[in-house]
Amino acid sequence: MSYTLPEFLAHAVALEHEAAERYLELADMMEAHRNDGVSSVFRDMVRFSQMHRDEIKARVGSIELPKLKSWQYRWRTPPEMGGDEAFDYLIEPYHALKYARANELRAMEYYRSVAGETGDTEVRRLAADFANEEAEHVAALDEWLARTPRPSSTWDADPDPPRPAG
Amino acid sequence: MSYTLPEFLAHAVALEHEAAERYLELADMMEAHRNDGVSSVFRDMVRFSQMHRDEIKARVGSIELPKLKSWQYRWRTPPEMGGDEAFDYLIEPYHALKYARANELRAMEYYRSVAGETGDTEVRRLAADFANEEAEHVAALDEWLARTPRPSSTWDADPDPPRPAG
Repeated sequence: MSYTLPEFLAHAVALEHEAAERYLELADMMEAHRNDGVSSVFRDMVRFSQMHRDEIKARVGSIELPKLKSWQYRWRTPPEMGGDEAFDYLIEPYHALKYARANELRAMEYYRSVAGETGDTEVRRLAADFANEEAEHVAALDEWLARTPRPSSTWDADPDPPRPAG
Repeated sequence: MSYTLPEFLAHAVALEHEAAERYLELADMMEAHRNDGVSSVFRDMVRFSQMHRDEIKARVGSIELPKLKSWQYRWRTPPEMGGDEAFDYLIEPYHALKYARANELRAMEYYRSVAGETGDTEVRRLAADFANEEAEHVAALDEWLARTPRPSSTWDADPDPPRPAG
């Protein structure tokens, strides 16, 4: 699919807004569990996402954007681990960071695919820029993951579900 | 985990509200693609979810409910099929119905697990009721799926990701 500029901008605003909201949830949860280091990582991410969203909105100006469906920009929910554990497992900083990383990676791949497929010069330029920003977020989360102990629980399996062959 | 009544009611209201919003999106999309049969199924689901949410809110009355995190009630997003196809594949009625079914099934399993684990008589009664309602929705979607041709596309693999061993 080759996006028009308004279609692309609508996705970018929605992705950044969604990211800001999810990072705020994660930051609040880490704070409630007295993990100030990871909480402050997520609060930085909230600010970056909000700033990025505001920059994109400034670029939008008076362009009318199409309305998107939720599944076009929403973060993937964490995988169900069976039963109620699903509702709580993000309390572990390790899982919260992995959850964020999986969604940043998805955003990066999305922007890259747009940049690679579009015929519009401006869309390509913006999408490549945004892909690089997401790549920086992934790298930042990787650094934090490297310092975060993996919980020795029943959640040994990697929480990322395998991607079906496309 | 054994929920208190306010915790349980907060989940139930959020789940029904989320379902109503997602069914509205699906109904609009099916209508835009001139699939009136499947669109009307989804519009019925919108009404059922809204009615159920309003009944639960009436039961809540003046009880103060806790604020939930998005991943505690949100529908799982469809699996990524790689690249941009992910953003469009729900245009097929078959995939839209499967998507809805997977999320109804998840809600049913959630209510069942609450009913099985709670120590609160009222929570158990309500959760068992709600599980039965979700089971009826799953059955209704199964009937529609049985009449809906499976698209002969590259999406041969079942769109439900395998659940990791809990």
